[in-house]
Amino acid sequence: MNDKEKRFAEQIGFLLEMDKMKNVYRRTRVLHEDRSENDAEHAWHLAMLAIVLQEYANEPVDLAKVLTTVLIHDVVEIDAGDTYAYDAAGNATKAEREQKAADRLYGLLPPEQGAYLRQLWEEFEAQSTPEARFANALDRVQPLMLNYSKHGESWLSHGTRREQVEGRIRPVYDGSAQLGDFAMELIRRAADEGLLK
Amino acid sequence: MNDKEKRFAEQIGFLLEMDKMKNVYRRTRVLHEDRSENDAEHAWHLAMLAIVLQEYANEPVDLAKVLTTVLIHDVVEIDAGDTYAYDAAGNATKAEREQKAADRLYGLLPPEQGAYLRQLWEEFEAQSTPEARFANALDRVQPLMLNYSKHGESWLSHGTRREQVEGRIRPVYDGSAQLGDFAMELIRRAADEGLLK
Repeated sequence: MNDKEKRFAEQIGFLLEMDKMKNVYRRTRVLHEDRSENDAEHAWHLAMLAIVLQEYANEPVDLAKVLTTVLIHDVVEIDAGDTYAYDAAGNATKAEREQKAADRLYGLLPPEQGAYLRQLWEEFEAQSTPEARFANALDRVQPLMLNYSKHGESWLSHGTRREQVEGRIRPVYDGSAQLGDFAMELIRRAADEGLLK
Repeated sequence: MNDKEKRFAEQIGFLLEMDKMKNVYRRTRVLHEDRSENDAEHAWHLAMLAIVLQEYANEPVDLAKVLTTVLIHDVVEIDAGDTYAYDAAGNATKAEREQKAADRLYGLLPPEQGAYLRQLWEEFEAQSTPEARFANALDRVQPLMLNYSKHGESWLSHGTRREQVEGRIRPVYDGSAQLGDFAMELIRRAADEGLLK
Protein backbone atom coordinates (compact mmCIF):
# COMPACT_ATOMS: atom_id res chain seq x y z
CA MET A 1 0.00 0.00 0.00
CA ASN A 2 1.49 3.37 -0.98
CA ASP A 3 1.13 6.60 1.06
CA LYS A 4 -1.94 7.78 -0.83
CA GLU A 5 -3.68 4.43 -0.40
CA LYS A 6 -2.76 4.34 3.29
CA ARG A 7 -4.17 7.85 3.78
CA PHE A 8 -7.43 6.95 2.06
CA ALA A 9 -7.74 3.69 4.03
CA GLU A 10 -7.28 5.60 7.32
CA GLN A 11 -9.97 8.10 6.33
CA ILE A 12 -12.46 5.38 5.41
CA GLY A 13 -11.61 3.49 8.62
CA PHE A 14 -12.37 6.58 10.71
CA LEU A 15 -15.65 7.19 8.85
CA LEU A 16 -16.82 3.61 9.43
CA GLU A 17 -15.88 3.87 13.13
CA MET A 18 -18.06 7.00 13.26
CA ASP A 19 -21.13 4.81 12.70
CA LYS A 20 -20.98 4.09 16.45
CA MET A 21 -22.24 7.64 17.09
CA LYS A 22 -25.64 6.30 16.02
CA ASN A 23 -25.62 4.08 19.13
CA VAL A 24 -24.54 6.56 21.81
CA TYR A 25 -27.81 7.51 23.49
CA ARG A 26 -28.44 10.74 25.37
CA ARG A 27 -30.97 11.62 28.09
CA THR A 28 -32.94 13.83 25.71
CA ARG A 29 -35.98 12.21 24.04
CA VAL A 30 -36.79 12.68 20.36
CA LEU A 31 -40.13 14.41 19.80
CA HIS A 32 -42.04 11.88 17.70
CA GLU A 33 -40.95 8.46 18.95
CA ASP A 34 -40.73 6.96 22.42
CA ARG A 35 -36.94 6.75 22.61
CA SER A 36 -33.79 8.71 23.39
CA GLU A 37 -31.89 10.80 20.89
CA ASN A 38 -28.48 9.51 19.81
CA ASP A 39 -25.30 11.52 19.26
CA ALA A 40 -25.49 11.43 15.45
CA GLU A 41 -29.03 12.84 15.47
CA HIS A 42 -28.10 15.42 18.10
CA ALA A 43 -25.08 16.62 16.09
CA TRP A 44 -27.18 16.84 12.92
CA HIS A 45 -29.82 18.88 14.76
CA LEU A 46 -27.18 21.26 16.15
CA ALA A 47 -25.85 21.74 12.63
CA MET A 48 -29.35 22.69 11.45
CA LEU A 49 -29.58 25.19 14.32
CA ALA A 50 -26.19 26.62 13.29
CA ILE A 51 -27.34 27.12 9.70
CA VAL A 52 -30.64 28.76 10.61
CA LEU A 53 -29.59 30.74 13.70
CA GLN A 54 -26.06 31.91 12.77
CA GLU A 55 -27.23 35.56 12.67
CA TYR A 56 -27.68 35.45 16.47
CA ALA A 57 -24.03 34.65 17.29
CA ASN A 58 -22.58 37.42 19.52
CA GLU A 59 -19.47 37.60 17.32
CA PRO A 60 -19.05 36.93 13.58
CA VAL A 61 -18.50 33.19 13.05
CA ASP A 62 -17.16 31.05 10.19
CA LEU A 63 -20.06 28.74 9.35
CA ALA A 64 -17.86 25.85 8.10
CA LYS A 65 -15.97 25.94 11.39
CA VAL A 66 -19.14 26.05 13.52
CA LEU A 67 -20.62 23.17 11.53
CA THR A 68 -17.47 21.07 11.77
CA THR A 69 -17.32 21.74 15.52
CA VAL A 70 -20.91 20.71 16.23
CA LEU A 71 -20.67 17.68 13.93
CA ILE A 72 -17.60 16.29 15.77
CA HIS A 73 -18.08 17.69 19.30
CA ASP A 74 -19.37 14.41 20.80
CA VAL A 75 -17.16 11.96 18.88
CA VAL A 76 -15.22 11.13 22.07
CA GLU A 77 -18.43 9.70 23.52
CA ILE A 78 -18.00 6.64 21.29
CA ASP A 79 -15.46 5.49 23.88
CA ALA A 80 -16.23 7.72 26.88
CA GLY A 81 -20.06 7.51 26.77
CA ASP A 82 -22.52 10.34 27.27
CA THR A 83 -22.23 11.97 30.68
CA TYR A 84 -25.53 13.48 31.83
CA ALA A 85 -25.16 17.21 32.46
CA TYR A 86 -26.35 16.85 36.08
CA ASP A 87 -24.34 13.69 36.99
CA ALA A 88 -21.64 14.98 39.38
CA ALA A 89 -19.74 11.68 39.78
CA GLY A 90 -19.63 11.05 36.03
CA ASN A 91 -18.47 14.59 35.37
CA ALA A 92 -15.51 14.18 37.78
CA THR A 93 -13.85 11.56 35.54
CA LYS A 94 -15.21 12.88 32.24
CA ALA A 95 -12.16 14.92 31.14
CA GLU A 96 -9.72 12.03 31.56
CA ARG A 97 -11.99 9.50 29.82
CA GLU A 98 -12.55 11.89 26.95
CA GLN A 99 -8.86 12.69 26.43
CA LYS A 100 -8.13 8.96 26.10
CA ALA A 101 -11.02 8.61 23.67
CA ALA A 102 -9.74 11.54 21.62
CA ASP A 103 -6.28 9.90 21.41
CA ARG A 104 -7.76 6.75 19.95
CA LEU A 105 -10.50 8.15 17.73
CA TYR A 106 -8.74 11.13 16.15
CA GLY A 107 -5.65 8.89 15.97
CA LEU A 108 -7.44 6.81 13.33
CA LEU A 109 -7.14 9.69 10.84
CA PRO A 110 -4.08 10.88 8.89
CA PRO A 111 -2.12 12.93 11.49
CA GLU A 112 -2.76 16.49 10.25
CA GLN A 113 -6.45 15.77 9.77
CA GLY A 114 -6.86 14.16 13.18
CA ALA A 115 -4.95 17.04 14.78
CA TYR A 116 -7.23 19.62 13.16
CA LEU A 117 -10.47 17.97 14.27
CA ARG A 118 -9.08 17.39 17.74
CA GLN A 119 -8.10 21.05 17.92
CA LEU A 120 -11.67 22.09 17.11
CA TRP A 121 -12.87 19.81 19.88
CA GLU A 122 -10.29 21.22 22.35
CA GLU A 123 -11.37 24.75 21.40
CA PHE A 124 -14.97 23.71 22.03
CA GLU A 125 -14.07 22.32 25.45
CA ALA A 126 -12.01 25.43 26.32
CA GLN A 127 -14.59 27.82 24.80
CA SER A 128 -11.65 29.70 23.29
CA THR A 129 -13.06 30.88 19.92
CA PRO A 130 -16.26 32.61 18.74
CA GLU A 131 -17.21 29.42 16.87
CA ALA A 132 -16.71 27.29 20.01
CA ARG A 133 -18.85 29.66 22.08
CA PHE A 134 -21.65 29.71 19.52
CA ALA A 135 -21.49 25.89 19.12
CA ASN A 136 -21.75 25.57 22.90
CA ALA A 137 -24.78 27.86 22.98
CA LEU A 138 -26.51 25.61 20.43
CA ASP A 139 -25.49 22.47 22.32
CA ARG A 140 -27.21 23.77 25.46
CA VAL A 141 -30.30 25.24 23.81
CA GLN A 142 -31.24 22.26 21.59
CA PRO A 143 -31.95 19.77 24.44
CA LEU A 144 -33.93 22.48 26.26
CA MET A 145 -36.06 23.03 23.14
CA LEU A 146 -36.73 19.29 22.88
CA ASN A 147 -37.34 18.80 26.61
CA TYR A 148 -39.78 21.69 26.76
CA SER A 149 -41.55 20.60 23.55
CA LYS A 150 -41.87 17.08 24.98
CA HIS A 151 -43.63 18.42 28.08
CA GLY A 152 -40.59 18.00 30.33
CA GLU A 153 -40.56 14.18 30.06
CA SER A 154 -36.80 13.92 30.67
CA TRP A 155 -36.81 16.54 33.47
CA LEU A 156 -39.75 14.94 35.28
CA SER A 157 -38.23 11.45 35.15
CA HIS A 158 -34.91 12.75 36.57
CA GLY A 159 -36.47 15.19 39.06
CA THR A 160 -34.50 18.04 37.48
CA ARG A 161 -34.57 21.37 39.34
CA ARG A 162 -35.02 24.78 37.75
CA GLU A 163 -31.70 26.11 39.09
CA GLN A 164 -29.83 23.15 37.53
CA VAL A 165 -31.19 24.01 34.10
CA GLU A 166 -30.54 27.72 34.64
CA GLY A 167 -26.93 26.96 35.54
CA ARG A 168 -26.58 24.86 32.42
CA ILE A 169 -28.04 27.67 30.27
CA ARG A 170 -26.00 30.58 31.68
CA PRO A 171 -22.97 29.98 29.32
CA VAL A 172 -25.32 30.28 26.35
CA TYR A 173 -24.99 34.06 26.81
CA ASP A 174 -21.27 33.81 25.94
CA GLY A 175 -22.21 32.58 22.45
CA SER A 176 -25.55 34.27 21.83
CA ALA A 177 -27.44 36.76 23.99
CA GLN A 178 -30.55 36.19 21.87
CA LEU A 179 -30.48 32.43 22.47
CA GLY A 180 -29.70 32.98 26.15
CA ASP A 181 -32.85 35.09 26.57
CA PHE A 182 -34.90 32.60 24.56
CA ALA A 183 -33.69 29.72 26.74
CA MET A 184 -34.34 31.54 30.03
CA GLU A 185 -37.86 32.31 28.85
CA LEU A 186 -38.42 28.61 28.08
CA ILE A 187 -37.20 27.71 31.58
CA ARG A 188 -39.55 30.27 33.12
CA ARG A 189 -42.46 28.76 31.20
CA ALA A 190 -41.40 25.21 32.08
CA ALA A 191 -41.27 26.12 35.78
CA ASP A 192 -44.67 27.84 35.59
CA GLU A 193 -46.10 24.68 34.02
CA GLY A 194 -44.62 22.48 36.77
CA LEU A 195 -42.13 20.68 34.48
CA LEU A 196 -39.15 21.70 36.65
CA LYS A 197 -38.86 21.52 40.43
CA MET B 1 -45.28 40.14 17.82
CA ASN B 2 -42.87 42.46 15.95
CA ASP B 3 -40.96 41.47 12.78
CA LYS B 4 -37.87 40.31 14.67
CA GLU B 5 -39.94 38.14 17.01
CA LYS B 6 -41.91 36.71 14.07
CA ARG B 7 -38.67 35.86 12.25
CA PHE B 8 -37.22 34.11 15.30
CA ALA B 9 -40.47 32.21 15.93
CA GLU B 10 -40.47 30.97 12.32
CA GLN B 11 -36.87 29.79 12.64
CA ILE B 12 -37.55 27.91 15.88
CA GLY B 13 -40.72 26.41 14.37
CA PHE B 14 -38.75 25.07 11.39
CA LEU B 15 -36.04 23.65 13.68
CA LEU B 16 -38.60 21.81 15.82
CA GLU B 17 -40.30 20.45 12.68
CA MET B 18 -36.88 19.13 11.64
CA ASP B 19 -37.01 16.67 14.54
CA LYS B 20 -39.16 14.48 12.26
CA MET B 21 -36.01 13.67 10.24
CA LYS B 22 -35.11 11.35 13.14
CA ASN B 23 -38.13 9.21 12.23
CA VAL B 24 -37.73 8.91 8.46
CA TYR B 25 -36.17 5.47 8.02
CA ARG B 26 -34.07 4.38 5.07
CA ARG B 27 -33.29 0.93 3.67
CA THR B 28 -29.70 1.08 4.83
CA ARG B 29 -28.95 -0.60 8.17
CA VAL B 30 -26.73 0.95 10.84
CA LEU B 31 -23.62 -1.10 11.55
CA HIS B 32 -23.92 -1.79 15.28
CA GLU B 33 -27.65 -2.22 15.96
CA ASP B 34 -30.35 -4.30 14.30
CA ARG B 35 -32.30 -1.41 12.77
CA SER B 36 -32.48 0.95 9.80
CA GLU B 37 -30.67 4.26 9.59
CA ASN B 38 -32.79 7.40 9.74
CA ASP B 39 -32.41 10.57 7.68
CA ALA B 40 -30.87 12.64 10.49
CA GLU B 41 -28.14 10.03 11.08
CA HIS B 42 -27.58 9.64 7.35
CA ALA B 43 -27.18 13.41 6.85
CA TRP B 44 -24.78 13.62 9.80
CA HIS B 45 -22.71 10.77 8.38
CA LEU B 46 -22.57 12.43 4.94
CA ALA B 47 -21.36 15.63 6.62
CA MET B 48 -18.56 13.66 8.31
CA LEU B 49 -17.61 12.21 4.91
CA ALA B 50 -17.59 15.73 3.44
CA ILE B 51 -15.23 17.00 6.14
CA VAL B 52 -12.80 14.10 5.87
CA LEU B 53 -12.94 13.44 2.11
CA GLN B 54 -13.23 16.98 0.67
CA GLU B 55 -9.75 16.69 -0.92
CA TYR B 56 -11.17 14.10 -3.35
CA ALA B 57 -13.77 16.39 -4.94
CA ASN B 58 -13.11 16.69 -8.69
CA GLU B 59 -13.49 20.48 -8.51
CA PRO B 60 -12.72 22.90 -5.65
CA VAL B 61 -15.73 23.06 -3.31
CA ASP B 62 -16.88 25.44 -0.59
CA LEU B 63 -17.09 23.25 2.54
CA ALA B 64 -19.88 25.27 4.21
CA LYS B 65 -21.99 24.87 1.07
CA VAL B 66 -21.30 21.12 0.77
CA LEU B 67 -22.15 20.66 4.46
CA THR B 68 -25.35 22.69 4.25
CA THR B 69 -26.38 20.72 1.15
CA VAL B 70 -25.86 17.29 2.69
CA LEU B 71 -27.46 18.34 5.98
CA ILE B 72 -30.70 19.49 4.27
CA HIS B 73 -30.79 17.28 1.14
CA ASP B 74 -33.40 14.86 2.52
CA VAL B 75 -35.59 17.35 4.42
CA VAL B 76 -38.40 16.90 1.87
CA GLU B 77 -38.67 13.27 2.97
CA ILE B 78 -40.41 14.43 6.16
CA ASP B 79 -43.52 14.75 3.98
CA ALA B 80 -42.59 12.74 0.88
CA GLY B 81 -40.99 9.73 2.61
CA ASP B 82 -37.81 7.93 1.60
CA THR B 83 -38.02 6.43 -1.87
CA TYR B 84 -35.81 3.36 -2.23
CA ALA B 85 -33.25 3.88 -5.01
CA TYR B 86 -34.46 0.77 -6.87
CA ASP B 87 -38.25 1.34 -6.48
CA ALA B 88 -39.41 2.29 -10.01
CA ALA B 89 -43.06 3.06 -9.10
CA GLY B 90 -42.08 5.25 -6.15
CA ASN B 91 -39.54 7.11 -8.22
CA ALA B 92 -42.15 7.97 -10.88
CA THR B 93 -44.10 10.21 -8.44
CA LYS B 94 -41.11 11.26 -6.33
CA ALA B 95 -40.42 14.65 -7.97
CA GLU B 96 -43.99 15.90 -7.57
CA ARG B 97 -44.29 14.71 -3.96
CA GLU B 98 -40.97 16.31 -3.09
CA GLN B 99 -41.80 19.69 -4.67
CA LYS B 100 -44.96 19.86 -2.57
CA ALA B 101 -42.97 18.93 0.52
CA ALA B 102 -40.37 21.62 -0.25
CA ASP B 103 -43.16 24.22 -0.54
CA ARG B 104 -44.44 23.41 2.92
CA LEU B 105 -41.17 22.74 4.78
CA TYR B 106 -38.96 25.53 3.44
CA GLY B 107 -42.05 27.74 3.65
CA LEU B 108 -41.85 27.52 7.44
CA LEU B 109 -38.69 29.67 7.39
CA PRO B 110 -38.35 33.43 6.85
CA PRO B 111 -38.64 33.81 3.03
CA GLU B 112 -35.01 34.58 2.10
CA GLN B 113 -33.71 31.79 4.34
CA GLY B 114 -36.19 29.23 3.03
CA ALA B 115 -35.41 30.28 -0.55
CA TYR B 116 -31.66 29.81 0.00
CA LEU B 117 -31.98 26.31 1.48
CA ARG B 118 -34.46 25.31 -1.20
CA GLN B 119 -32.05 26.58 -3.85
CA LEU B 120 -29.29 24.36 -2.44
CA TRP B 121 -31.68 21.41 -2.59
CA GLU B 122 -32.71 22.27 -6.17
CA GLU B 123 -29.03 22.52 -7.15
CA PHE B 124 -28.48 19.12 -5.53
CA GLU B 125 -31.37 17.61 -7.50
CA ALA B 126 -30.17 19.25 -10.75
CA GLN B 127 -26.49 18.46 -10.04
CA SER B 128 -25.72 21.97 -11.24
CA THR B 129 -22.79 23.00 -8.99
CA PRO B 130 -19.48 21.42 -7.89
CA GLU B 131 -20.86 21.24 -4.32
CA ALA B 132 -24.03 19.49 -5.49
CA ARG B 133 -22.01 16.94 -7.50
CA PHE B 134 -19.67 16.20 -4.58
CA ALA B 135 -22.63 15.96 -2.14
CA ASN B 136 -24.29 13.51 -4.52
CA ALA B 137 -21.12 11.40 -4.69
CA LEU B 138 -21.10 11.15 -0.89
CA ASP B 139 -24.84 10.37 -0.80
CA ARG B 140 -24.29 7.38 -3.09
CA VAL B 141 -21.06 6.09 -1.54
CA GLN B 142 -22.11 6.17 2.14
CA PRO B 143 -24.91 3.55 1.87
CA LEU B 144 -22.59 1.36 -0.20
CA MET B 145 -19.94 1.55 2.53
CA LEU B 146 -22.50 0.58 5.18
CA ASN B 147 -24.13 -2.15 3.07
CA TYR B 148 -20.77 -3.73 2.26
CA SER B 149 -19.55 -3.44 5.87
CA LYS B 150 -22.77 -5.09 7.04
CA HIS B 151 -22.17 -8.09 4.77
CA GLY B 152 -24.77 -7.05 2.22
CA GLU B 153 -27.71 -7.47 4.62
CA SER B 154 -29.87 -4.88 2.84
CA TRP B 155 -28.90 -6.11 -0.67
CA LEU B 156 -29.57 -9.76 0.17
CA SER B 157 -32.99 -9.04 1.69
CA HIS B 158 -34.02 -7.03 -1.39
CA GLY B 159 -32.37 -9.33 -3.95
CA THR B 160 -30.37 -6.36 -5.29
CA ARG B 161 -28.44 -6.97 -8.52
CA ARG B 162 -24.87 -5.86 -9.22
CA GLU B 163 -25.85 -3.77 -12.26
CA GLN B 164 -28.44 -1.86 -10.19
CA VAL B 165 -25.76 -0.79 -7.73
CA GLU B 166 -23.30 -0.01 -10.53
CA GLY B 167 -25.93 2.22 -12.17
CA ARG B 168 -26.49 3.99 -8.88
CA ILE B 169 -22.75 4.53 -8.42
CA ARG B 170 -21.91 5.81 -11.93
CA PRO B 171 -22.81 9.50 -11.13
CA VAL B 172 -20.31 9.40 -8.26
CA TYR B 173 -17.64 9.99 -10.93
CA ASP B 174 -19.16 13.42 -11.66
CA GLY B 175 -18.31 14.51 -8.11
CA SER B 176 -15.21 12.48 -7.32
CA ALA B 177 -13.24 10.09 -9.52
CA GLN B 178 -11.43 8.77 -6.45
CA LEU B 179 -14.71 7.87 -4.71
CA GLY B 180 -16.09 6.42 -7.95
CA ASP B 181 -13.15 4.02 -8.22
CA PHE B 182 -13.42 3.16 -4.52
CA ALA B 183 -17.13 2.41 -4.86
CA MET B 184 -16.71 0.27 -7.98
CA GLU B 185 -14.01 -1.75 -6.21
CA LEU B 186 -16.41 -2.33 -3.26
CA ILE B 187 -19.08 -3.53 -5.70
CA ARG B 188 -16.60 -5.91 -7.34
CA ARG B 189 -15.70 -7.36 -3.94
CA ALA B 190 -19.38 -7.58 -2.91
CA ALA B 191 -20.20 -9.48 -6.10
CA ASP B 192 -17.22 -11.82 -5.61
CA GLU B 193 -18.47 -12.54 -2.08
CA GLY B 194 -21.99 -13.32 -3.32
CA LEU B 195 -23.60 -10.26 -1.68
CA LEU B 196 -25.02 -9.01 -4.99
CA LYS B 197 -26.81 -11.02 -7.67
